[in-house]
Amino acid sequence: MFDKILICNRGEIALRVLRTCQRLGIATVVAHSEADRDTPAVRLADETVTLGPGAAEHSYLNVPAVLYACARTGADAVHPGYGFLSEDALFARCCAELGITFIGPPAELIGLMGDKVAARNAAAAAGVPLPPGTQDPLEDLNDALRQAETLGYPLILKAAAGGGGRGIAVVADRDALVRSFPEVRHNARTLFQDGRVHLERFVPGARHVEVQVLGDRHGTVVHLGERDCSVQRRWQKLVEESPSGVLTEDLRRRIGETAVGLARSVGYHSAGTVEFLVDQAGEFYFIELNPRIQVEHPVTEVRTGIDIVEQMIRVAAGEPLGFTQDDVVLSGHSVQCRVNAEDPADGWRGSVGEVVRFTPPAGDGVRVDTHVHPGHHVPPFYDSLLAKVIVHAPTRDEALDRMARALTEFDCAGVTTTIGFHRQLVDHPVFRADRHSVDFLARHLDDHGALRAAPEVAP
Amino acid sequence: MFDKILICNRGEIALRVLRTCQRLGIATVVAHSEADRDTPAVRLADETVTLGPGAAEHSYLNVPAVLYACARTGADAVHPGYGFLSEDALFARCCAELGITFIGPPAELIGLMGDKVAARNAAAAAGVPLPPGTQDPLEDLNDALRQAETLGYPLILKAAAGGGGRGIAVVADRDALVRSFPEVRHNARTLFQDGRVHLERFVPGARHVEVQVLGDRHGTVVHLGERDCSVQRRWQKLVEESPSGVLTEDLRRRIGETAVGLARSVGYHSAGTVEFLVDQAGEFYFIELNPRIQVEHPVTEVRTGIDIVEQMIRVAAGEPLGFTQDDVVLSGHSVQCRVNAEDPADGWRGSVGEVVRFTPPAGDGVRVDTHVHPGHHVPPFYDSLLAKVIVHAPTRDEALDRMARALTEFDCAGVTTTIGFHRQLVDHPVFRADRHSVDFLARHLDDHGALRAAPEVAP
Repeated sequence: MFDKILICNRGEIALRVLRTCQRLGIATVVAHSEADRDTPAVRLADETVTLGPGAAEHSYLNVPAVLYACARTGADAVHPGYGFLSEDALFARCCAELGITFIGPPAELIGLMGDKVAARNAAAAAGVPLPPGTQDPLEDLNDALRQAETLGYPLILKAAAGGGGRGIAVVADRDALVRSFPEVRHNARTLFQDGRVHLERFVPGARHVEVQVLGDRHGTVVHLGERDCSVQRRWQKLVEESPSGVLTEDLRRRIGETAVGLARSVGYHSAGTVEFLVDQAGEFYFIELNPRIQVEHPVTEVRTGIDIVEQMIRVAAGEPLGFTQDDVVLSGHSVQCRVNAEDPADGWRGSVGEVVRFTPPAGDGVRVDTHVHPGHHVPPFYDSLLAKVIVHAPTRDEALDRMARALTEFDCAGVTTTIGFHRQLVDHPVFRADRHSVDFLARHLDDHGALRAAPEVAP
Repeated sequence: MFDKILICNRGEIALRVLRTCQRLGIATVVAHSEADRDTPAVRLADETVTLGPGAAEHSYLNVPAVLYACARTGADAVHPGYGFLSEDALFARCCAELGITFIGPPAELIGLMGDKVAARNAAAAAGVPLPPGTQDPLEDLNDALRQAETLGYPLILKAAAGGGGRGIAVVADRDALVRSFPEVRHNARTLFQDGRVHLERFVPGARHVEVQVLGDRHGTVVHLGERDCSVQRRWQKLVEESPSGVLTEDLRRRIGETAVGLARSVGYHSAGTVEFLVDQAGEFYFIELNPRIQVEHPVTEVRTGIDIVEQMIRVAAGEPLGFTQDDVVLSGHSVQCRVNAEDPADGWRGSVGEVVRFTPPAGDGVRVDTHVHPGHHVPPFYDSLLAKVIVHAPTRDEALDRMARALTEFDCAGVTTTIGFHRQLVDHPVFRADRHSVDFLARHLDDHGALRAAPEVAP
């Protein structure tokens, strides 16, 4: 087992990884930006290293600074959390060359999964169903228009190297494709330094269902059930739950086996998530494989009792998984709401400044993962996540009732948050009835960030 | 089921009861003092009533004000929490006469258990072992000295109506009894308006082990396992854990059956705790039956998954217990540390004032019950409890490691707390080895509130 792990991340995930390291008796180094000096992970770490100024490119994305921090502190492994360097194949390769264990999958798989075209081909080779789409990158707009005619509208235009909801556009018809093509290609080049784009059939009324997989370096791969993340705004997940209400037992078994089969076929180890769209006919289609821990992993942890970060660390240290698929028992229903420092009434603009009051909810069946405390300054440099509220209860209705009460308890002042939005959401009749799809928010959110009870005419 | 429950208490327990009421869909009234206006239970209640100024006799002990608050708000039941009116038989009788359900045992049992002499007699009648002692109240000092010769020193001199560690003295010899008798009798008269005192044999090296019982109004009584509360300072519990390391399986079974037998023999219903001393030979002796929820109930909740407040409410509403003794499954090890606003280095003096920073620990297996937030003013009127940190883990060592980390995470500034004391305690070799007894702190605490590694010569 490792003696010392360097945590190269911030916010709630740095604290969450730190807690597991401490429980396992592993010394911790928290590498942080100057803007994050006054955060709990920095306060609680055994050692700390300042990477650079606030902006991520100078700190959390500063590969030489992170590698130097590892060398200086003698850390024998690095946990990248999510975002930042977690999907940077170059960083993972540098770690390997310097003899530092990257706590995550092999570098070549990070590279493979980061290339959406290559990932689709790997999935197809493993027999995973793909939404109809173009196999090779589109040459130009004319090529795109030609292929679109064959596939049929509506379509999704995607950057091959994209992710996190950026570099993506839904195109309803030919005109929209003509308008969107240059923009998506431009974004692909500037955001991801890779101008390749491709087309996929848009699946109407679909749900986003993903499967948490876990593999070791000895060929064992299991899954920890699914998460339904269909409440999205502009491809950003806001609420996640497990199980998904749209899976029959047969479909649940098949989608789980498919995810495990894909992971096994590419030689995956560590934690990963295979994302699917599930359409109204019960067909499922591969979206991507995220080769890292995800923001929504706690909904799986509370249902399984498995600490996913611990498993990542053990697997990275070469230990075999200590359990089989049959040992994985999923209980009850869990829901997570991401509380962001954003103002839904003002175009969901990020809210920065000092949090003057902050009392998160607590009590039976309520878990809150957060790095925020009163007096915390929300810096302008990073994502806007303040806290994840996770609830666990025997049934979905009880879990949503528990979430409603937890959100009512949540007292936060100083910055504008999405707590009010989540309060509306958990009692919205469509969401309560479990009849929402990934376009739910696009159809129900008004311009002031409020949820309409009745949908407008379907697009 | 009740429509509306009035919570007549404050601090963490008011919030804890409120959460269960909300989960059960029962409207809440929080009756509070003027000093407690700005507390979370008041903020989250459906209705609130101000009982009077800060001092408890004007607010939480103000029986007419509480009864009027029930009548005015139409509450059909009242939860008294612990302390204050929770063991006031007169209050319970008044509630019954006004048609308000007192959420607790029958008034006559509260009266019986509040009278230590009568409680001992009831226990003896039920075949519960008592420590050798006087059966009738002592007439005077001469009577005490005579009986002490027969019993043999050391002895404990106790007020019949005492409780909470007040009105009690350990007397090592004849001289000590001569010195202590007038003081204990005086305290008994002034604190409890009842001058009766009695003597009990002092059990050396004993552990405090108590059994949580739960009974309904239909004759069913079960127990939820034991709690070991041997870490005490001046009879005040500071740390509680479950299970107790000094019980063999046979002793655990017998002590559980004894507690249930006593509760059944007196017609007990609601939650109650039967307290015992367990000596080094494995004999156990009755101390008292506490007819209310206790501060340490969460260690039982996390091991059983049973919400004890919910069960109290259901039983008070006339529901039968929904489970039998065989359904009660106890898992792992749990520990609770009471974090008080006290200064161990200054004679454990209460610390009042504003809490300027307050970030309690969190994470897997950590539960914190607290009403405190930054900006909270600790009022001078009540007990000094700021927060209860409860941990749950597979084994005692893992639970104590988890507690050590949780206490290290706990950030509180503005008032002096006992967090530092608890940090020392959880790593103290005697406590770690589970070899402490109820006089552990008396023997290991120095005058500055620090724990000595080695005990002084045994008293």
